[in-house]
Amino acid sequence: MRTVDLQTGAVQLIDQTALPDVFQLVECRSLDEIADAIRTMKVRGAPAIGAAAAFGMVLGARGYLGNEPHPFLEHLEEVAEVLKATRPTAVNLAWAVNRSLTAVREILAPAPEGEHIDIVRQARAMLVTVARDLCDADVADNHKLGAHGAALIPEQANVLTHCNTGSLATVEYGTALGVIRSAIGAGKRVHVYVDETRPFLQGARLTTWELQEDGIPFTLITDGMAGHFISRGEVDLVIVGADRIAANGDVANKIGTYTLAVLCKENGIPFYVAAPTSTIDLTVATGADIPIEQRSQREITHVAGVRVAPIGTQAAHPAFDVTAARYVTAIITEQGVHRAPYDASLRAAVAAADPLRGAVPEAERVRS
Amino acid sequence: MRTVDLQTGAVQLIDQTALPDVFQLVECRSLDEIADAIRTMKVRGAPAIGAAAAFGMVLGARGYLGNEPHPFLEHLEEVAEVLKATRPTAVNLAWAVNRSLTAVREILAPAPEGEHIDIVRQARAMLVTVARDLCDADVADNHKLGAHGAALIPEQANVLTHCNTGSLATVEYGTALGVIRSAIGAGKRVHVYVDETRPFLQGARLTTWELQEDGIPFTLITDGMAGHFISRGEVDLVIVGADRIAANGDVANKIGTYTLAVLCKENGIPFYVAAPTSTIDLTVATGADIPIEQRSQREITHVAGVRVAPIGTQAAHPAFDVTAARYVTAIITEQGVHRAPYDASLRAAVAAADPLRGAVPEAERVRS
Repeated sequence: MRTVDLQTGAVQLIDQTALPDVFQLVECRSLDEIADAIRTMKVRGAPAIGAAAAFGMVLGARGYLGNEPHPFLEHLEEVAEVLKATRPTAVNLAWAVNRSLTAVREILAPAPEGEHIDIVRQARAMLVTVARDLCDADVADNHKLGAHGAALIPEQANVLTHCNTGSLATVEYGTALGVIRSAIGAGKRVHVYVDETRPFLQGARLTTWELQEDGIPFTLITDGMAGHFISRGEVDLVIVGADRIAANGDVANKIGTYTLAVLCKENGIPFYVAAPTSTIDLTVATGADIPIEQRSQREITHVAGVRVAPIGTQAAHPAFDVTAARYVTAIITEQGVHRAPYDASLRAAVAAADPLRGAVPEAERVRS
Repeated sequence: MRTVDLQTGAVQLIDQTALPDVFQLVECRSLDEIADAIRTMKVRGAPAIGAAAAFGMVLGARGYLGNEPHPFLEHLEEVAEVLKATRPTAVNLAWAVNRSLTAVREILAPAPEGEHIDIVRQARAMLVTVARDLCDADVADNHKLGAHGAALIPEQANVLTHCNTGSLATVEYGTALGVIRSAIGAGKRVHVYVDETRPFLQGARLTTWELQEDGIPFTLITDGMAGHFISRGEVDLVIVGADRIAANGDVANKIGTYTLAVLCKENGIPFYVAAPTSTIDLTVATGADIPIEQRSQREITHVAGVRVAPIGTQAAHPAFDVTAARYVTAIITEQGVHRAPYDASLRAAVAAADPLRGAVPEAERVRS
């Protein structure tokens, strides 16, 4: 089943805060509910929150009860802002919302002033179509990405990964975890070292759960152990996802990623990033321009609801870090395997996926 | 108050598993109780478990009720083996136990066969003296070490540390944290980034608690965040403790330490190790020969008693890692600040602290 889907009028999500103990679905029936689900990480993972946001546009559209195209468009632009503000780092969210806006603008903007029931109805239907298409494309792209990446995995490999980049982080199948799935599907023998990924423990809670479901052998480790196993030659490569990739190939991803990249360089093993082209933001020149979401201190001072630090403890919680392009061996997208110089290879990948986005200045289209 | 002390016949420990919420003392009245306290990390930190083990010899001596010197010595040798087996990586434990054994051998071994109440009584008293002296020396050495290290800290500094190396990890004052205390005592302004230090959370639970008590400003971070702050120039230096230092300067310390050293090298900031000379094991040529304690998987799959990974999850738990000497800017002991080549500088430090230990082959004396 899909991590995000539209079912009988509600957006249905697998509640990722309840895993691994409880598999439960949540239904969002309003903009507030979906925005809250994204903010509290009931749904997480750059591609998955992109899909959730596209459906969020469908829910948000219900907040306008009239039939006038221009007020409806203005309403949708406000809905888009609400959704984009939920999580600032992952660009797929802004990308998905902008895709919906672009599609409805083509319908609504040319209409003359006044009531136009059919045009508004048509635009509402378009929002559903865009979201569904985006989900279908995500699944298809992940399978393509997986196949491209699988070629980089040795016949027998110990692969280390961070956070969760599987079905739960996408609509289905996954990015970095999709590459691992594809390699195994191609008959390779892969054992996975899973970083627990503090503070939210996506590795310990979600990646283990997916690997266990698939019968893929794995070993859970704390984030601080990765260096130990890498330095002992027990890891052949590291592969991670991404929340935003700048035009120069700098990668924003879950906090802890930069450290893995440095460890790979120091120990001479490849560091791969797997993400759909929708994660590439050509409007951002370098990683320094990517906003880093700062989350609650409570997610550091408490684990699984239990306080582990003294009352009054000051904590920092940058949710992402930036890995400079020079540490990245290759970036794998649905378009293929891209290598340095990334300015050229990423622009070509985006152009192949979406000729308009690859060719023109993007400030208007993707700026979050 | 001291982390480890002998009070009215019992070994009194601050229970480090109950902190930061509850400050409680545990009293150990037998070898089993003290061995269990070390194994379960009620007392932890290389110098603190050295002190606990020295008192463990006192408790263990009570298991022999006779008055014959040779059987008593044989009994104490068995007690020593039990204590050494509790935690294999930190050499201070074996060092302390061997110190006790050497002292009582000088009394017991020359005695003729048969009952010698006075000699056995004298040996029992010597065990207490050795343990108390060792504790007093630890406190004094930490203050010296702190003063040497303080000279390396800039006037205004952001210092990152890992695990707990404070009063709780020693008898009093601390090693790496002692350096920070000394720097502040010397009028420097220090802000500390505290790695939470998964899995046991010594940073989140214990270092924060000590810093808060002392009013030293700090920010708690997850282990995966260290690279983020280091790469942004927000950390001036990293300073850690050690559980065992090989003759060539390779350092075994709490898992995650190696990663910090690599991050320091990559970002051109100093990586310091602070430990008493008792942590230097000249019988071990390189870090490859240091045994790495493997602890329970449950400490990975559970946090604060709450299971965070799916049932059936396979986890690894090496409790320490080894940082090659080439990453270590300097090693700070009570004897001074030692730099590469470490073979020479560490041997000189040990010789200055203990002429016998620095000069002769140590296989007999320290081998754990």
